Amino acid sequence: MGLKLYGLPMSTCTTRVLTCLHEKGLEFELVPINLFGGEHKQPPFLEKNPFGQIPVLEDGDLTLFESRAITAYIAHKFRDSGCDLIRHGDDNEAAVVRVWVEAEAQQYSPAIQPIVFQCLVAPRIGKTSDQKIIDESVEKLGSVLDVYEARLSKTKYLAGDHFTLADLHHLSYTFYLMKTPYASLVESRPHVKAWWEDISARPAFVKVSENMKFEAK
Amino acid sequence: MGLKLYGLPMSTCTTRVLTCLHEKGLEFELVPINLFGGEHKQPPFLEKNPFGQIPVLEDGDLTLFESRAITAYIAHKFRDSGCDLIRHGDDNEAAVVRVWVEAEAQQYSPAIQPIVFQCLVAPRIGKTSDQKIIDESVEKLGSVLDVYEARLSKTKYLAGDHFTLADLHHLSYTFYLMKTPYASLVESRPHVKAWWEDISARPAFVKVSENMKFEAK
Repeated sequence: MGLKLYGLPMSTCTTRVLTCLHEKGLEFELVPINLFGGEHKQPPFLEKNPFGQIPVLEDGDLTLFESRAITAYIAHKFRDSGCDLIRHGDDNEAAVVRVWVEAEAQQYSPAIQPIVFQCLVAPRIGKTSDQKIIDESVEKLGSVLDVYEARLSKTKYLAGDHFTLADLHHLSYTFYLMKTPYASLVESRPHVKAWWEDISARPAFVKVSENMKFEAK
Repeated sequence: MGLKLYGLPMSTCTTRVLTCLHEKGLEFELVPINLFGGEHKQPPFLEKNPFGQIPVLEDGDLTLFESRAITAYIAHKFRDSGCDLIRHGDDNEAAVVRVWVEAEAQQYSPAIQPIVFQCLVAPRIGKTSDQKIIDESVEKLGSVLDVYEARLSKTKYLAGDHFTLADLHHLSYTFYLMKTPYASLVESRPHVKAWWEDISARPAFVKVSENMKFEAK
């Protein structure tokens, strides 16, 4: 049995996993889930992920959810094919990867998510963008990116000299941020900008981003 | 050189790491950081963690931040002493641990944090508790705990039959939740309640929680 991914090609969390699968050059089946029809909140899907969220990965009898747990599984299981995304050969390097994986989850993601939601999603679902939320999040994201700018002036990638999961996890949301009026958050910081141009040009993400069609209205 | 942990014994993120260190029976030095004096936002500390947050772990030349990255490092490096917190001998079991570690970080933590902040922290720093935020978070946490209740009716711990990091990461915030008027969120769900009583009675956490003195006013 092969790998089966349940999700949507435009969803940030699905594309996080898709990019990882392509980095590893793996074959898989993408099973679309009808979010607009509420398929993810119905029993067949809830048996796969009781939180009712995409993506879900099935690998034989194993069912996994939470995109960052799925990428870690893929990066570990297929550690010897393609790019080593977890630096598994060196415990200290692997620990630093985990630090910056957590920085994405705990610092970057909470700041960037509301901007993307308010600018790109809200207008599509008939809501007015909340400028106060945007302004607060832009300020937060700016502070996080100041830390990144300093870090990336010393190392090519977040966890050191190699592209890892720590970088990969940033791709989906940053791709959408660049389609909002706040792309300057990245463009105004030279090391962050160079890092973004480097990681977003990797063939795995270029392929995935072709299907990320969530444009600002 | 031994392990050096910078943090505070009442801080939820510090206690997450302290509990892990005690589970492994490790010797370490706890270096207190004067948060109220802003020590974490000054250069000497910012060199350890550029985000200016506790805890930080130093292990020889290696400096790590983000509590969940630190616990993963400890659990991996000392995998053969004490309780195996990552189920490292079985790739599928390890993957399920990571799923529930992510569930804590992405589902549980964002729902429980505002309740603890509004009920215990806000009154201490001269702010009025925001009941609207509390009510919204109580509803969210209730939904997450419904999923946990179903899960824990099938397995003793979140990731299966063994206590792992997935359970350990819940201890700090749940301990404080039980001191708010919303302890019934746990007590009204029999499997969640039994799980909480089990994991909070482990000697490592009993020792750590003796110094968690953040009472409701």
